[in-house]
Amino acid sequence: MSSYIKNDWYMAAWAGELTDQPLGRRIANEPVCLFRDASGKVAAVEDRCPHRAVALSLGKVVAQGIECGYHGIVFDGKGECVRIPGQSHIPSKACVRHYAVEEKDSIVWLWLGDPAKADRSLIVDYPWHGDTKKWPHKEGLIPVACDYRMLLDNIMDLTHLGYVHARTIGGSPGAHSNALMKTDRTERGVKFQRWLLDSMPPPTYLKAANFPGHIDRWQELELITPCSIIQYTGGVDVAQDAYHGGSREGGFAMRVLHCVVPETDTTCHYFFSVANGWAQDNPQVTEIAYGQVYPTLIEDKVICENQQKLVADFPDRETVDIKSDEARIVFRRQLDRRIAEEQALQAASGAALSPA
Amino acid sequence: MSSYIKNDWYMAAWAGELTDQPLGRRIANEPVCLFRDASGKVAAVEDRCPHRAVALSLGKVVAQGIECGYHGIVFDGKGECVRIPGQSHIPSKACVRHYAVEEKDSIVWLWLGDPAKADRSLIVDYPWHGDTKKWPHKEGLIPVACDYRMLLDNIMDLTHLGYVHARTIGGSPGAHSNALMKTDRTERGVKFQRWLLDSMPPPTYLKAANFPGHIDRWQELELITPCSIIQYTGGVDVAQDAYHGGSREGGFAMRVLHCVVPETDTTCHYFFSVANGWAQDNPQVTEIAYGQVYPTLIEDKVICENQQKLVADFPDRETVDIKSDEARIVFRRQLDRRIAEEQALQAASGAALSPA
Amino acid sequence: MSSYIKNDWYMAAWAGELTDQPLGRRIANEPVCLFRDASGKVAAVEDRCPHRAVALSLGKVVAQGIECGYHGIVFDGKGECVRIPGQSHIPSKACVRHYAVEEKDSIVWLWLGDPAKADRSLIVDYPWHGDTKKWPHKEGLIPVACDYRMLLDNIMDLTHLGYVHARTIGGSPGAHSNALMKTDRTERGVKFQRWLLDSMPPPTYLKAANFPGHIDRWQELELITPCSIIQYTGGVDVAQDAYHGGSREGGFAMRVLHCVVPETDTTCHYFFSVANGWAQDNPQVTEIAYGQVYPTLIEDKVICENQQKLVADFPDRETVDIKSDEARIVFRRQLDRRIAEEQALQAASGAALSPA
Repeated sequence: MSSYIKNDWYMAAWAGELTDQPLGRRIANEPVCLFRDASGKVAAVEDRCPHRAVALSLGKVVAQGIECGYHGIVFDGKGECVRIPGQSHIPSKACVRHYAVEEKDSIVWLWLGDPAKADRSLIVDYPWHGDTKKWPHKEGLIPVACDYRMLLDNIMDLTHLGYVHARTIGGSPGAHSNALMKTDRTERGVKFQRWLLDSMPPPTYLKAANFPGHIDRWQELELITPCSIIQYTGGVDVAQDAYHGGSREGGFAMRVLHCVVPETDTTCHYFFSVANGWAQDNPQVTEIAYGQVYPTLIEDKVICENQQKLVADFPDRETVDIKSDEARIVFRRQLDRRIAEEQALQAASGAALSPA
Repeated sequence: MSSYIKNDWYMAAWAGELTDQPLGRRIANEPVCLFRDASGKVAAVEDRCPHRAVALSLGKVVAQGIECGYHGIVFDGKGECVRIPGQSHIPSKACVRHYAVEEKDSIVWLWLGDPAKADRSLIVDYPWHGDTKKWPHKEGLIPVACDYRMLLDNIMDLTHLGYVHARTIGGSPGAHSNALMKTDRTERGVKFQRWLLDSMPPPTYLKAANFPGHIDRWQELELITPCSIIQYTGGVDVAQDAYHGGSREGGFAMRVLHCVVPETDTTCHYFFSVANGWAQDNPQVTEIAYGQVYPTLIEDKVICENQQKLVADFPDRETVDIKSDEARIVFRRQLDRRIAEEQALQAASGAALSPA
Repeated sequence: MSSYIKNDWYMAAWAGELTDQPLGRRIANEPVCLFRDASGKVAAVEDRCPHRAVALSLGKVVAQGIECGYHGIVFDGKGECVRIPGQSHIPSKACVRHYAVEEKDSIVWLWLGDPAKADRSLIVDYPWHGDTKKWPHKEGLIPVACDYRMLLDNIMDLTHLGYVHARTIGGSPGAHSNALMKTDRTERGVKFQRWLLDSMPPPTYLKAANFPGHIDRWQELELITPCSIIQYTGGVDVAQDAYHGGSREGGFAMRVLHCVVPETDTTCHYFFSVANGWAQDNPQVTEIAYGQVYPTLIEDKVICENQQKLVADFPDRETVDIKSDEARIVFRRQLDRRIAEEQALQAASGAALSPA
């Protein structure tokens, strides 16, 4: 069974990555060439010229579309061949696959499946990228050599903070293991909330804000399949009693977007952004917040790449689930259910199409 | 089906590469140890000692031949074992394969198949290497991670000059696509001639010679299977009407030899030489000509290595031929025909030898 | 057939490598996490947490054992899970394999098979590591990309000294090939003695001691399966007639321990120590002796890694044995015999256990 949902949106790039040069990126094993056409609109086509099998992203953007850098064949944003130097006839086979794409919230989203089925209402909303007053942010991308699901698993079980990130955002392991946890399955994924009441502020928080003593700390995460996680996290002085509805203002607050996009079966693109919810008028603070998150993601990368290697080396050894896997397991079931549904649908439609 | 002709000559090294040290080189998947014997004659044997499977090229040249660097066993240029330290008996199995080799025109040629069938009359002639007055030259070797045929394909379709080499020898793409083209199949390969009449001199030409305006430019290439291409290229002022038999003197002229030798199924040795047909008494000019060609070959390397990677990753995706593939297709047919003939012959001789 | 004996002791680490941090090491394809418990005793468990398949050696040593660096699960030295953060129930499957280990003579020995069968009387004795007065020593570890048996083969045929180590410990090749050689099979391996009578002292010997002229030189090696070699080597002035029982004092003497431990099927850990038997009160001499041996092992590494590559590339090509392979062949037969016996025993016990 494939480990990917085909008919859904995947983050393909930061909008800012696309200038006047094409960008080649493997997404879920597919070679994709992203580019902005003459009008600035983003297009995505198969990153392989059907003439000699060279990546179109080695070519250049021209008025009519993307020109192959080998023999100059041009394709438009729909993958149609519009020019073959030295001949007027365009063979019907000389075309490439194209993808539905949409630029929204500073993100280029790509529909991996049939473009005709692309449903723009399903694109993840992330309005905070546009809200530069309240949530100034900085964007990043880390290549990680693991199955994308391992990194999503990692984020879905935050008890790892006390161990993997002890020196940064972790704080005391006990607080994490004893956090108040609420997990809810959603239509397209899973949501969970954790409260670490009356806990020590972790090193990262202390660098950002002055806390006189213990804090009530929240972590709200929503995973939207296939692979986006919206995180809202922060902490305020215990006196504010935020857990029982008190104010969440005046302490530390951060929004982190995680888009963990499969590149191949064993590698992924970890897109992320960090938005700071305090001292928003000081651009240095955004840098500091990013500078606190980035090394924790590198710590996650080390762990997940090690896991990938051990899974590859010992594929037959079993794993054991524990209590803190709850949200992770809901996520995996949702993902597997959606993949199975999609494949059943495809099999049924294939059966309907074949002659009896 | 193998992608190699066995019974033919392949360039194995530049003669100047062979000094008093052995040279190990993989040719068409075979490990070959090249060395000069005591008399200076080049020999080539299997680069694997039959005792403990170590490369003979890690050893040293001695009076009787090549001495293994592990336990001192010595083989002569015919692959016969002539000495085993500590024992007088030489087992009949203690020998290695040898190859027919010939040093000619600064090149070491190696017959990949049965040495008894080696026909020296089939060695490619390249007299210009010896003509240092009219054609001073410089030699090079670039390792390229692609099937050798991809690089030969590349040279056989020169419309790529307008795209891959736009900043160097390319000139205007339109001129290349509209070139007058004549392709002829030959006994052992294919020849083609292209004329770019009344065209802009490309950057490389302008660096070499002063042209008041447009030029008539020729490219004459002959591919001799398995993998050598002899190129004669140049341009003169349009006023000389070279295309209709006018003089080709006084402008720019260059001879390039390309020997693209398979190393493995997915890597090759790109041997090349550049000879300048102007200002021959100035050694700096040879350096300049080489310095113009070398980066274009690196541009080709980038393209072909990308192609190799895409073909390896997506072996089932098809390619489409276009008009400019004409010479390339003739070459491929010639090569495939020769490989098929050789294999049919081998099968027949195998059948004749086996008991009925 | 496996190339490893399972029920025997392998060197897993130098005792000094184990401080307060865990050490991950692959041994015979198995991932092993070595650590010292709170009392300083060495333990070894499977280096893979059964929760999410991450290496335990990325975690840290705690009072109860080794704590996984991902979610904090703790295992004791017997591989039992003793703590899962956030839950009190410990599932029975949440345990890892453990290994019998023993620290002796500055070496951590590990029994690769069933810990219940571990027989401490079979651990190799190497008392010279403790005798710092007569045999001060220095320890090393070199990773080598070859089947461990190739390196053991290398040591068992010392005629390679005249070729591989000509510039260091080799001396004249003729002397090596004509050495007086005596090979004896032992219960667990093979022993051999070589005498190079009336021979030139090699460069290494001359750096260590002043010899007026030729020497009688001995090499005594004992291989103990699976993969340890105890070497005692030296030379004295011919006048002492050491071969016929004369004194071996007053010249050059060295003890080298070689433990060539399989890491995977094609890589190994080359543990070694060098002890000097002269000028023992000068610590610089130990450094010099080590500094002489180390580069020769790197020369061996180059040869054996080349052999591994050629064997991998051409698995079907045969090798031929020569006279100097005698000790090597005895070693291989012993090893193969022990592996076959172990596997036969296992098959028989498996048969006894399965229902008829």
